[in-house]
Amino acid sequence: MEIKKPYLLFLGDAQDPLAAKVAQGIKQWHPEYCAGQYRMEDCQADCSLTDMNIAQAKAAGVKTLVIGVANRGGIISDNWLTILKEALEAGMDLASGLHNKLTDIPELKELADSLGRNLFDVRFPTQTFPVANGLKRSGKRVLQVGTDCSVGKMYTALALEKEMLAQGMKTSFRATGQTGILISGSGVSIDAVVADFIAGAVETIAPANDADHWDVIEGQGSLFHASFSGVTAGLIHGSQADALVLCHEPTREHMRGLPTYPLPDLKTCMELNLTMARITNPDVKFVGISVNTSQLSEAEAAKYLAEVEAEFNLPAVDPFREGVSRIVEALAKI
Amino acid sequence: MEIKKPYLLFLGDAQDPLAAKVAQGIKQWHPEYCAGQYRMEDCQADCSLTDMNIAQAKAAGVKTLVIGVANRGGIISDNWLTILKEALEAGMDLASGLHNKLTDIPELKELADSLGRNLFDVRFPTQTFPVANGLKRSGKRVLQVGTDCSVGKMYTALALEKEMLAQGMKTSFRATGQTGILISGSGVSIDAVVADFIAGAVETIAPANDADHWDVIEGQGSLFHASFSGVTAGLIHGSQADALVLCHEPTREHMRGLPTYPLPDLKTCMELNLTMARITNPDVKFVGISVNTSQLSEAEAAKYLAEVEAEFNLPAVDPFREGVSRIVEALAKI
Repeated sequence: MEIKKPYLLFLGDAQDPLAAKVAQGIKQWHPEYCAGQYRMEDCQADCSLTDMNIAQAKAAGVKTLVIGVANRGGIISDNWLTILKEALEAGMDLASGLHNKLTDIPELKELADSLGRNLFDVRFPTQTFPVANGLKRSGKRVLQVGTDCSVGKMYTALALEKEMLAQGMKTSFRATGQTGILISGSGVSIDAVVADFIAGAVETIAPANDADHWDVIEGQGSLFHASFSGVTAGLIHGSQADALVLCHEPTREHMRGLPTYPLPDLKTCMELNLTMARITNPDVKFVGISVNTSQLSEAEAAKYLAEVEAEFNLPAVDPFREGVSRIVEALAKI
Repeated sequence: MEIKKPYLLFLGDAQDPLAAKVAQGIKQWHPEYCAGQYRMEDCQADCSLTDMNIAQAKAAGVKTLVIGVANRGGIISDNWLTILKEALEAGMDLASGLHNKLTDIPELKELADSLGRNLFDVRFPTQTFPVANGLKRSGKRVLQVGTDCSVGKMYTALALEKEMLAQGMKTSFRATGQTGILISGSGVSIDAVVADFIAGAVETIAPANDADHWDVIEGQGSLFHASFSGVTAGLIHGSQADALVLCHEPTREHMRGLPTYPLPDLKTCMELNLTMARITNPDVKFVGISVNTSQLSEAEAAKYLAEVEAEFNLPAVDPFREGVSRIVEALAKI
């Protein structure tokens, strides 16, 4: 699956800027993919792109309208249908990461089929994957693992890709969640793959490559998360990671969605991830710690990062505040 | 999903006894579910049940014809269709654990729908499951974990259930694979559940129960198996096991299907399983080691089991040779 560029980012009738965070992510990481934005009359979000209607987007060469907004409930709104159909008629594919599917809306499905357009529901894998074979493959891989869900694994991976490319390293971001797929244009929503094929799907999206090529594989969940550890275990084994980056949010009071579960301490978390990762790559090691310090003051963040760095003798950075160049330095030595 | 009893075990045109091992398993563990067997003319298997045609099975009150045979490729043979349709017309449901689905064969699906019969393709879950909530639930649970796939986890679980029931303990076997489902009549093929819902499916099939009730949850895969560790991780977290039984086959030269992967030693395997299991139940402990010694002589087996028992100070048994009563003794103390 490869979503064609350039994109028209559809912000719809976003009720606030946060509702368009997917579009914001695409714009932030790949402004070169974005020809413009489509804002409905009452849209409260703005990605600072050229406002376009469908005719203007067509004239600008747009290949795909990407739904970059989530309304309440994460569904495709009836209000959007006229515009989505207009985009199909103008020659564009549609891409969405929402819970309900474009392909489940008969008037969109029929129109797309009749016109030969693609509807990408990136939350739902359409290809089948093999059982993982566990065979060592050429190329190098770095995976983000976390103390919890939603602690910055995708952000860290995208920051790593950007910095590694800037330093001239051969690098590919491998998306494993819907937002990452829309940002990068390909990948698989690994949490929607059938259990037997989790590791096999990861082997598929991060295949053998040049010996000096790095896959930056987007992590998901946490081995310590009672709901999603299976996803994480499959990701770890399928990626055969050479390097791990630990992601953490230091003010989180309990595991996301699980009020009775505390977060693991960093040392415990790193040990378990290493034990699991060594099964498919005995040489794996941590190369850095990426901390989301957005809930801390600058002084608190600096103190926390210094303490973590000293304790583990690894670069500890907030990728948003200072970037990930020190982690990339460690990666470059592998 | 509850498959209605009694069963007619369909042995079809089994080319050798091993091809009917699912039927053998049902007969072995639940002879009381089995009204008879159906053998085609050239059938080379025999479960030592009364041979019946469909009319005789109907007269005997059979509710479900269970396909207890696998032909080459694990598919439903065209040769069987006449008999399967006759069973539907006689009022029976059909149940199969094969790779291709009864419901994908139009003439079976249409006939079953028109007659109001059920087609159970137990390898493919039909219900949806919630994301695991990780909440502690009443009742007790024992899970089999293994050094590898196919080392006797299902056999051990069924042996535990049988022995626990014989000792008067409140016990339910919870099947997580197709053979276990056909043997027990319910459960879910956990490896076919979408990754996000593995642990949630286990919470669903082993729900809150009487404080003195034991769920014996059938384990799958291994945390050390590069292809299937995600399934195992979800099973461990969803089961919130109070007790673990380690299953092992001591002559296995490498992980099943993975020639480059050695088996873990028992101590390493137990430590990792405990670390993972403690996340959802800090009090979890191993209560025994179940070894498939079928490849060893009686003397070799006795020596091996004695060594393992001494090393870990846990009952180490071959469930086939000597039963699991010593493991049940340890369970009864929890």
